[in-house]
Amino acid sequence: MLEKTTFALRGHILHTPTPRAIVCMPESYLVCEEGKTAGVFTELPERFKGIPVEDCGDRLVIPGLVDLHLHAPQYSFRALGMDLELLDWLNTHTFPEEAKYADPAYAGRAYRIFADDLAVSPTTRAAVFGTIHRPATELLMDLIEETGVRALVGKVNMDRNSPDILREESAAASLEDTARWISETKGKYRNVAPILTPRFTPSCTDELMEGLGKLQRETGLPVQSHLSENFSEIAWVKELCPWSGCYGGAYDRFGLFGGDAPTIMAHCVHSTGEEIDLMQARGVFIAHCAQSNTNLASGVAPVRAYLDRGMKVGLGTDIAGGFSLSVFRAMADAVQASKLRWRLLDDSLRPLTVPEAFYLGTKGGGEFFGKVGSFEEGYEFDAVVLDDSGFPHPQALTPVERLERILYLDDGRCVRGKYVAGARVR
Amino acid sequence: MLEKTTFALRGHILHTPTPRAIVCMPESYLVCEEGKTAGVFTELPERFKGIPVEDCGDRLVIPGLVDLHLHAPQYSFRALGMDLELLDWLNTHTFPEEAKYADPAYAGRAYRIFADDLAVSPTTRAAVFGTIHRPATELLMDLIEETGVRALVGKVNMDRNSPDILREESAAASLEDTARWISETKGKYRNVAPILTPRFTPSCTDELMEGLGKLQRETGLPVQSHLSENFSEIAWVKELCPWSGCYGGAYDRFGLFGGDAPTIMAHCVHSTGEEIDLMQARGVFIAHCAQSNTNLASGVAPVRAYLDRGMKVGLGTDIAGGFSLSVFRAMADAVQASKLRWRLLDDSLRPLTVPEAFYLGTKGGGEFFGKVGSFEEGYEFDAVVLDDSGFPHPQALTPVERLERILYLDDGRCVRGKYVAGARVR
Repeated sequence: MLEKTTFALRGHILHTPTPRAIVCMPESYLVCEEGKTAGVFTELPERFKGIPVEDCGDRLVIPGLVDLHLHAPQYSFRALGMDLELLDWLNTHTFPEEAKYADPAYAGRAYRIFADDLAVSPTTRAAVFGTIHRPATELLMDLIEETGVRALVGKVNMDRNSPDILREESAAASLEDTARWISETKGKYRNVAPILTPRFTPSCTDELMEGLGKLQRETGLPVQSHLSENFSEIAWVKELCPWSGCYGGAYDRFGLFGGDAPTIMAHCVHSTGEEIDLMQARGVFIAHCAQSNTNLASGVAPVRAYLDRGMKVGLGTDIAGGFSLSVFRAMADAVQASKLRWRLLDDSLRPLTVPEAFYLGTKGGGEFFGKVGSFEEGYEFDAVVLDDSGFPHPQALTPVERLERILYLDDGRCVRGKYVAGARVR
Repeated sequence: MLEKTTFALRGHILHTPTPRAIVCMPESYLVCEEGKTAGVFTELPERFKGIPVEDCGDRLVIPGLVDLHLHAPQYSFRALGMDLELLDWLNTHTFPEEAKYADPAYAGRAYRIFADDLAVSPTTRAAVFGTIHRPATELLMDLIEETGVRALVGKVNMDRNSPDILREESAAASLEDTARWISETKGKYRNVAPILTPRFTPSCTDELMEGLGKLQRETGLPVQSHLSENFSEIAWVKELCPWSGCYGGAYDRFGLFGGDAPTIMAHCVHSTGEEIDLMQARGVFIAHCAQSNTNLASGVAPVRAYLDRGMKVGLGTDIAGGFSLSVFRAMADAVQASKLRWRLLDDSLRPLTVPEAFYLGTKGGGEFFGKVGSFEEGYEFDAVVLDDSGFPHPQALTPVERLERILYLDDGRCVRGKYVAGARVR
């Protein structure tokens, strides 16, 4: 099989084994051995002499980028109608658009546009929301499979507080459809797998959550949802689940909050101390979505605090609360939002640095997928080759400076090659 | 002459005569008569029958974008080293880079890169800082002249609190060099003209400011500088000019703050009530630079308050506090920053809307250049033709929705034609 070969890329190799600094090995060999990274070497070691070497010249080679949170059906209205806060935005723009995916023809047209853009992006791993519609979600999985990107894709569950056109008939119907979808898709793909996806507490009854927790224990599938994004949302959850000490507790009660159920929670902008403790205890991954949290005026998550505590954090583009599918942009946005948070709200939390943002968008989120997002030995070989010749500079720059520039300036034209788990996909 | 012809563009015509809404006339004729806009018509009026018509098909036609503040010499290090606040950033990155422009060969290489990117951008008007170096600044003016963009370009004045390599010998020397530069450049170009450019109060002695004020009265030239960007800067000005009630007063005392001296002040993030009153009384133009103010953690200017008072406000990219030369990006950044300001700092000032941001980046800043930035009758014919086919959508969108998408998604590939004062420059 293509991804099981052994080869090397030669170029300027950069990655962030820790958030503290971008490690650069200029003019070096990044060796892929049977789909895994064997190491980065200034000269090819004896045991690799003779393996194929792809010369990337003066280009940069970085780990593939990881998008921990996005909604594929919302790609069709990205960059539109962001003058509302979360709950109004959902009712006015999001739910009517998602309802259209009941029509497989529409879903096919829209998801094709999404998949085409995902394919050419520097993203190699993603956690993706679909809609409540099983056929459309399977179509989405088929299309992502073709891109070579490794993705966890979720058929969404919603059985309350949603418009008629986007609400499943009952908890039982939702669970039955979800079980069928899992049996139809689990193990079917090379690159794509299902992930349990209760939309968020307000749109899922306790009965549905109970059933999804049971399904999680039976299948071992991971979980993704939303948490503490917006003040009105949090107040609503308090009303709906008065028995829970925090919003996160409303997932945890049903076994859908980390622990044995690997879980991504998007946002965590306004998490309480209790909720943060619970996330840390359960090993929940936080998908930090700075652009979306800005566009919907939700606020800025205290990522510095999460990092200082050693919690698990990655980045999400959160299409279409976010308008950009670029994880480079998500990195820049994370840095920028942290600066305004520091200046306007709380100067006890230092702004994020560029190396920290790069870490979050590679290894930080990558760890949800296993050993992913770094070029340390034994990590899956996800790599992207970048050409920044479109941004000429009057003097020589170091590779680290060039990467910093790409992070801010990438316009979608830098990617010249993409490898996922050892397979070249672009 | 090329720009004095009469012709029409046919397409979807959009502009913002007021900040309240984007006005769209789909499938209409935008008529240019002798360099000025004659109007937008659904059918060509009798008197224009037979004029050349450029059919833009399904493309959008908007006013050229206006960049009220940017530093051309800093383009070479955009997107690098933005982990510092203003004064440290100036000393660490900016001043050493600007010192290199003493070498005309370096200036030529670096300014060529800037001018090439400006030429292909949707910007048609700009107010530009050079460096203290007269030859390099004249070179910059030569290069911008070729782009067709109408620009005010400033040789910078600095005679204190600057490193030796970037400080003029004395106030007298600075003034003499400035007078020579004005005599060499005023009236020399079709597109480019000089603008007086004291860098900011900390780097200009009272003697220099006094002389620049005199020069302004003699020449009638406009003025550009910086105002109330960062707390440390403001505190420093208070020390340097204890006689002034506010930072702005330190320009006003020398006749460099609006009134008979048309003036752009960049930033105005932390202006006091006294300063705001003075700006309004003097008709000072504010260049709002949201991205730069985020990158350097300066804060977010209260643009909503400025608009509510009917003050004059436009947008600046502020290269290289800002990393992007795109005024579309400056519009999106202005909206986004206003949302975080509203959420994190002061919920009495509603976030900016997309139409307001579009107004700021066209007519708002354009008024500094005269009747510029709108398609109302008699406005100079600055127009940009946009192709958004690179952002496919599964359903039809209105032209206003398409423009909103471009504002957020433009990656530098949308511009298909550019006209400045009636002349096609791209």
